[in-house]
Amino acid sequence: MSSSFSDFKTLYSKIVNISEATSLLFWDQLTYMPEGSSSARAEQAATLQSIVHELSTGNEMKDLLSKCEAEYASEDENGDTRTMLRIARRDFDRGTKLPASLVEEKSRHSTLAYNTWVKARERSDFDMFAPVLKKTLELTMREIDLLGYKDHPYDALLEESEPGVTHAQVKAVFSELKPALISLISRIKESGNSVDVSCLHGDFDLDKQRALTTFAVKEIGYNFSMGRQDPTVHPFCISMSPQDVRITTRYDAAYFSAAFYASMHEAGHALYEQGLPLQYAGTPLCKAASSGVHESQSRMWENIVGRSREYCTHIMPRFREYFPSFSNCDPEELYRAVNCVKPSFIRVEADEATYNLHVLLRFEIESALLEGNLDVDDIPDAWDSAMEEYFGITPPSDAEGCLQDVHWTGGFGGFPCYTLGNVISLQLWDKLSMDLTDPKQLILNGEFAPILTWLRENVHSQGMRYQPFDLVEKITGTKITAKPLIDYLNNKYSEIYGI
Amino acid sequence: MSSSFSDFKTLYSKIVNISEATSLLFWDQLTYMPEGSSSARAEQAATLQSIVHELSTGNEMKDLLSKCEAEYASEDENGDTRTMLRIARRDFDRGTKLPASLVEEKSRHSTLAYNTWVKARERSDFDMFAPVLKKTLELTMREIDLLGYKDHPYDALLEESEPGVTHAQVKAVFSELKPALISLISRIKESGNSVDVSCLHGDFDLDKQRALTTFAVKEIGYNFSMGRQDPTVHPFCISMSPQDVRITTRYDAAYFSAAFYASMHEAGHALYEQGLPLQYAGTPLCKAASSGVHESQSRMWENIVGRSREYCTHIMPRFREYFPSFSNCDPEELYRAVNCVKPSFIRVEADEATYNLHVLLRFEIESALLEGNLDVDDIPDAWDSAMEEYFGITPPSDAEGCLQDVHWTGGFGGFPCYTLGNVISLQLWDKLSMDLTDPKQLILNGEFAPILTWLRENVHSQGMRYQPFDLVEKITGTKITAKPLIDYLNNKYSEIYGI
Repeated sequence: MSSSFSDFKTLYSKIVNISEATSLLFWDQLTYMPEGSSSARAEQAATLQSIVHELSTGNEMKDLLSKCEAEYASEDENGDTRTMLRIARRDFDRGTKLPASLVEEKSRHSTLAYNTWVKARERSDFDMFAPVLKKTLELTMREIDLLGYKDHPYDALLEESEPGVTHAQVKAVFSELKPALISLISRIKESGNSVDVSCLHGDFDLDKQRALTTFAVKEIGYNFSMGRQDPTVHPFCISMSPQDVRITTRYDAAYFSAAFYASMHEAGHALYEQGLPLQYAGTPLCKAASSGVHESQSRMWENIVGRSREYCTHIMPRFREYFPSFSNCDPEELYRAVNCVKPSFIRVEADEATYNLHVLLRFEIESALLEGNLDVDDIPDAWDSAMEEYFGITPPSDAEGCLQDVHWTGGFGGFPCYTLGNVISLQLWDKLSMDLTDPKQLILNGEFAPILTWLRENVHSQGMRYQPFDLVEKITGTKITAKPLIDYLNNKYSEIYGI
Repeated sequence: MSSSFSDFKTLYSKIVNISEATSLLFWDQLTYMPEGSSSARAEQAATLQSIVHELSTGNEMKDLLSKCEAEYASEDENGDTRTMLRIARRDFDRGTKLPASLVEEKSRHSTLAYNTWVKARERSDFDMFAPVLKKTLELTMREIDLLGYKDHPYDALLEESEPGVTHAQVKAVFSELKPALISLISRIKESGNSVDVSCLHGDFDLDKQRALTTFAVKEIGYNFSMGRQDPTVHPFCISMSPQDVRITTRYDAAYFSAAFYASMHEAGHALYEQGLPLQYAGTPLCKAASSGVHESQSRMWENIVGRSREYCTHIMPRFREYFPSFSNCDPEELYRAVNCVKPSFIRVEADEATYNLHVLLRFEIESALLEGNLDVDDIPDAWDSAMEEYFGITPPSDAEGCLQDVHWTGGFGGFPCYTLGNVISLQLWDKLSMDLTDPKQLILNGEFAPILTWLRENVHSQGMRYQPFDLVEKITGTKITAKPLIDYLNNKYSEIYGI
């Protein structure tokens, strides 16, 4: 290793350490921080983020990158060294386009936006949130102008979360999905068939829910000696290092699925983070490939595994152990209940069939905002008419409409990864099913280790080595396509709804 | 304000923000952090601390201090500006004597030392801790050599926690106290009288203890919208900003006093931090005067207030509400029970009469280690013989002996402040008693606000404006003296033990 590359690694791991400390500031803010300290916390986070920005884009990084790139120019382009340098170069180039003052302003604004959003959501008062959101949009547009883009302003945002993916590609995937979903939902509706979801509603003691979700996420492989689970308003997973990956859950005493499947979802994210290649800790390689790939892991454990007939059969004895009310329900009824298709207001609680239309709605609103075709003040109307058009329902309040998601407190461009995640999860699952003899039987037996091992070997251990769509193609041998997802949904719901 | 002074304040508040983030790393490490992440946490803390060190001692700070000192040379020496500059100058001068590499090594070592200590204490295995402690001593000696001192190596450490206070001064206070305490304890022993402590032992539900301590600390003024209370191994108070001051408690189901009085103690610390002058947030003035003054606040609320006859009378109905077993005990019995004098092993659980001898023992061991008159391997023997000499008892294990305190995981010099705190608390209380008409009546009525207000005005709001002994003299009109403490202890225990 050259001395420049050694210096580069030292500097990079310093940046990682500060970023991890920043993650703890956020975890704490969203779980246990006293409310009185939100402005001090905003200052702390802004300071650390500005130091990360300075170090990532400063002269030391610039010089080290140039030196290392020259020194290693003749080595294997896909070897560790050049891959690390390529990722750091991309971040450097993006970062140098943004002045530290803007980064700091955006960070400070997002903390205040979060606190305003919590209050506005409680009161279902979009007008309270609108001025903050206008500021978020203004800051985002300044960011996009500085970053530059080829075809669509959204491209500049996607490059951050989905390197190499464009607005046009996302739109193409949505175009494949949209008619198939609308057709599926309308066939379900026309069938007049319904499923009984009563077993999921009742009175579920919160402590027991906590114990049961703990059991379930542990069983699929989440390591509590390198993580923990806490209550919060909006569930999330956050990493303070691959040895400290925390998940959070929102518990609903009246509705069983909320916490249980949110826990499976966040645990899916956490399994990815806990499976990142530790030998590369502190380097650009010890990072997830993209938000979309991340979401493929959470949705796979939540849905493909967690909402399968085999999982329902496997987990039923545990459900009954914690909640005797499940004794009145057999595994098949549970399977149907957790796969009920019903147009609803809240994205994170939506079923698999309607979920992607929720994402589509947000993607369309964000696209229109960035194109200048929609004003912030008109979001509630735009939201409500899209809900009416896609789902035939209108949110009774903004809290159940455009105020439901935390994302816009931090910026735009965060939603497409959810649908990309579903798309990718099915492409991966099809390949996994070919490689493992019979994953459904494994699930039925409660043997999750072979599935996790496959994901560790094929996805997690790759870290950020490949761009997301390249990674999918490398693993599955096919380009990105919504077909496996469409087939999966059609097969699953045809059977359940007899259509 | 000159532009240099404005730049100085910006730089200083950046340092404060990073220090506050570092405090959160520690709080989390001692409360909720998964065990698997201790080495990553050590790296994170070391990185942030080295940035604080770089910024506090770098060229920017050097230039700004020089410029500002010149610009403000003719202003009032005790005005805000020059006071801030004086504190920052002192930190700069101390900091520049220590290379960043040593600071980082010490920080990293202390995190690992902490984790080793937790395990060694669990297993009561001093040999497991000894190598780590030798390294701590070696690092401390290097630090002392670099910092320099006039009379005693201990002076270099005291300057950090008690600016302006020397080893000789501490020794003088101890010399005043030592014979008085030994005499008091022996007179109590000779009296043959004892008090009934049975009301404090039993089976105390942990959730109820938590609720009761929450009530008690809230009642004396601790603000939960700017703080929180969590369980830990070794109770502490930590500030992530004056608007986020957290306390922690260790609960013992079998012994009531442990959690209750530890909570009052930590709340006393927290009241000080929550009372620091917010208008100076982010400047050197928004800091506590010293560890000793800090301890005067915790000990005042824990002991002078919390263990007074009047407080016992006031709080008894609450005790009975949470724990009906207290119905068999009247306030006078409670007062006697919480003031039982009994030589014991654990400092943090020691009574007021013996407590300072625990501190004396540690101060003597630390002094001998720094003087080179004691080897680390001989600490358990030195500890046990001092325990035998002062208290007539020998710890059954190192966990109840020299492994009981967390302090040596971070370094030496931290103990004298405890006795200084007791000394100062009584000097302040005597003055407070003259200023307020009848503080005992206020306590009896549960009216704690006038007491807190007096402390806020006289102590808390001063921040770091004065050196600790100067502050005490300014408030009370007398130099540091153990006499009020000796009188208080003699009066209290003469009555309780009829001597």
